[in-house]
Amino acid sequence: MRLSPLLLSVWLLSAASLPARAGTPVATTATDAAAALRERALADDTAWKVVESLTTEIGPRLAGSEADARAVAWAQAKFRELGYDRVWIEPVRFPKWERRGESAQVLGAHAQPLVVTALGGSPGGTVEAEIVRFDSLEALQAAPAGSLAGRIAFVDYRMSRARDGSAYGKGGAIRSRGPSEAIRKGAAGFLMRSAGTSEHRVANTGITRFDEGLTPVPAAALSLPDADQLTRLLARGPVRVRLALDCGWDGEYTSHNVIGEITGREAPQEVVLLGAHLDSWDLGTGAIDDASGIGITMAAGRLIGQLPQRPRRTVRVVAFANEEQGLVGAREYARRHAADVANHVVAVESDFGAGRIYGFDTSAGVAHAPASAIARALAPLGIAPMPGKGGPGPDISPLAAAGGAWAWLGQDGTHYFDLHHNADDTIDMIDPADLAQNVAAYTVFAWLAADASEGFGSAARAQED
Amino acid sequence: MRLSPLLLSVWLLSAASLPARAGTPVATTATDAAAALRERALADDTAWKVVESLTTEIGPRLAGSEADARAVAWAQAKFRELGYDRVWIEPVRFPKWERRGESAQVLGAHAQPLVVTALGGSPGGTVEAEIVRFDSLEALQAAPAGSLAGRIAFVDYRMSRARDGSAYGKGGAIRSRGPSEAIRKGAAGFLMRSAGTSEHRVANTGITRFDEGLTPVPAAALSLPDADQLTRLLARGPVRVRLALDCGWDGEYTSHNVIGEITGREAPQEVVLLGAHLDSWDLGTGAIDDASGIGITMAAGRLIGQLPQRPRRTVRVVAFANEEQGLVGAREYARRHAADVANHVVAVESDFGAGRIYGFDTSAGVAHAPASAIARALAPLGIAPMPGKGGPGPDISPLAAAGGAWAWLGQDGTHYFDLHHNADDTIDMIDPADLAQNVAAYTVFAWLAADASEGFGSAARAQED
Repeated sequence: MRLSPLLLSVWLLSAASLPARAGTPVATTATDAAAALRERALADDTAWKVVESLTTEIGPRLAGSEADARAVAWAQAKFRELGYDRVWIEPVRFPKWERRGESAQVLGAHAQPLVVTALGGSPGGTVEAEIVRFDSLEALQAAPAGSLAGRIAFVDYRMSRARDGSAYGKGGAIRSRGPSEAIRKGAAGFLMRSAGTSEHRVANTGITRFDEGLTPVPAAALSLPDADQLTRLLARGPVRVRLALDCGWDGEYTSHNVIGEITGREAPQEVVLLGAHLDSWDLGTGAIDDASGIGITMAAGRLIGQLPQRPRRTVRVVAFANEEQGLVGAREYARRHAADVANHVVAVESDFGAGRIYGFDTSAGVAHAPASAIARALAPLGIAPMPGKGGPGPDISPLAAAGGAWAWLGQDGTHYFDLHHNADDTIDMIDPADLAQNVAAYTVFAWLAADASEGFGSAARAQED
Repeated sequence: MRLSPLLLSVWLLSAASLPARAGTPVATTATDAAAALRERALADDTAWKVVESLTTEIGPRLAGSEADARAVAWAQAKFRELGYDRVWIEPVRFPKWERRGESAQVLGAHAQPLVVTALGGSPGGTVEAEIVRFDSLEALQAAPAGSLAGRIAFVDYRMSRARDGSAYGKGGAIRSRGPSEAIRKGAAGFLMRSAGTSEHRVANTGITRFDEGLTPVPAAALSLPDADQLTRLLARGPVRVRLALDCGWDGEYTSHNVIGEITGREAPQEVVLLGAHLDSWDLGTGAIDDASGIGITMAAGRLIGQLPQRPRRTVRVVAFANEEQGLVGAREYARRHAADVANHVVAVESDFGAGRIYGFDTSAGVAHAPASAIARALAPLGIAPMPGKGGPGPDISPLAAAGGAWAWLGQDGTHYFDLHHNADDTIDMIDPADLAQNVAAYTVFAWLAADASEGFGSAARAQED
């Protein structure tokens, strides 16, 4: 039994807090119903309130920290407060990394402090050594073997701003792979220009990895002005730096994916999954990374839950654990639900900040019937179909690799890397109107996908190791 | 013997690196000569190079720090390199304050770190206490006696941006007087929203004073986003904070005012003084506070020194010691030169950043003959006479109080407090074209004042204690 679009639309229009007027046209199609839901979402401040609550009451929530446990409790309570039908948690275990302190100083005739932050996964330790600067990861890779013995490698790649954040490809690779490359050349420490675009004295953290068989060395990122300063100093002659990090891995921790459902009325086992991650780095309060995603997806589910009847399928919102240190919660979710991939009709993640959404894509193809209905409903939000431009969000990628269909609601990331992984990632930087546009897109998408008569092509597939 | 304006102008035009063209008009008046000097200054990058050198090679230069001594040596060498006729130093002694570390955390259910910086002059110490918030200094003053016993006062006044920086009147007063007011009410610690306008996670330091007879308590400033966060937390209920400062006074130190002169050809004992201060706070590299002033004034003197003959009077550039902790170098200069006030024809200071100059004023009145000639020469730079709007710069004020005439070249300070006294005060934030406009104004002013046939009314006067 489905609620007719007519009835749904009447409810949506009457429930909106607009003054009733004689002559208000009544929607009569599913498209009109989606439009009414979209307008309702644009006027809704649930996402903002969720972001405010998470970033204020929990604050930074590094995976494995005391705040991680508080965030898990917070998310369960928030799902319940927002009227979700079912709320549960699924355990996720991982090694725990801690940051306790960090500093860097130029030594000698030009002695002065530099603003740095340890990369996640770095060992602690103090290194005093001469700096050797490289323009790129490739230049570091081309350095002769042993040429960095007893030195600190400094990779000084400058990211540019772009709507799709494409420069992060290179910047992120330097953070992940740079330390291991430096160690192979003999380096005693690693510094990089932050993989970010802020002109301010904030340095960007983020996970790094040390390749098997290498002995890790202290690895940190400089704020952009400090990278500029170090480059100016190097233009004058050799520079020695003291890099002192107090951080490292310390035991194991069990966190949880937190899941809330609006249960489908006809096919509750079929799931439209909206994802975001609950953990954050520790320097900011994780507002755009990823409280905004938590707020957007929780608010979308709530708006659908407020309709007079449930959609055909279930809308499942997943607040993933520990995305930052390697999609740990997402991998565990895919492992735990491996037998159920085909029932994950389509999955989408909000994890690229709080900028406006401009593009829509899906693994089903935007010409596929439900996708094209969604594209039409998104168009008034300034969102265009962009076949071939999208992909699964980070936390959706393990499910997608297992054969799950994905959708992409592409956000404007021009200023995302001004804030990503640094101390400026606070709620002050979020525009409430942009956030509401995201909620409108997620709500329309989730409702139309959950109520569509056909799926998006999810089918379990054998995975390579 | 004066060089005729005609000869001077011919030299200026020929010295400029413009291609010579047949038919180039030759300036024939003092006004034209000033115009040629102005254009030459606009194309000159000396100030930028000086700022780059000071902020890179010395970096932060807290009064009394190891970098203070390096800065004094740097300034003497720079004056000589720039062709000044005489360079000397005058000792300035003061107590030394050191910052070694600082942190703050919200305790309890919403535990999280807050970005703070100790106010200059604060004692060290650790306080764990409940926060009591006030909107203003007046609200703190109105609190009942003893009402803050064992608590931390938090003054949450929000500065607005203004071209003349007028909101700093209130913000600066909270920093200077807030801690003493809080102690009088029994407070164990003091926090304030930074006296600044940056939206970023940078907190603003600056000197505070504890009134005679009070026992100082740890006093610090929060970044604006952290002040917002604390206010959001307080809206939810009582908040306890742990404020831990490692800083304090430690012995005495002797620094130096550094002075360079372009010696006048007819009345070398008569001085046009251009001031700026050499010290800075320690969080940034002191680029707009006040390397820019050092660069502007040093460059202006150099341009005048490059003319084929010296002006009638001496142009004296003073790089004052320890402005930040109470105009210490400026007071010592006024004391040492007390018998020579009447020979300080006019004094001006650049200590409000690197924004464009928009206004001119002087204690002589802008209608006074030399002042009005200066005003005419400044007009093409977008600088308007603003009688009654100006005043002596901080380091000029002791001399002005002793009867010295002053001039004011008012800079646009709209964004000055985004950077002032915080970590973002780096060269990256300076616009070279704006800096050159400042140099042009100072050069024209200094040359016309030094070559004018009359003075600006300096006359020693008895001072009250």
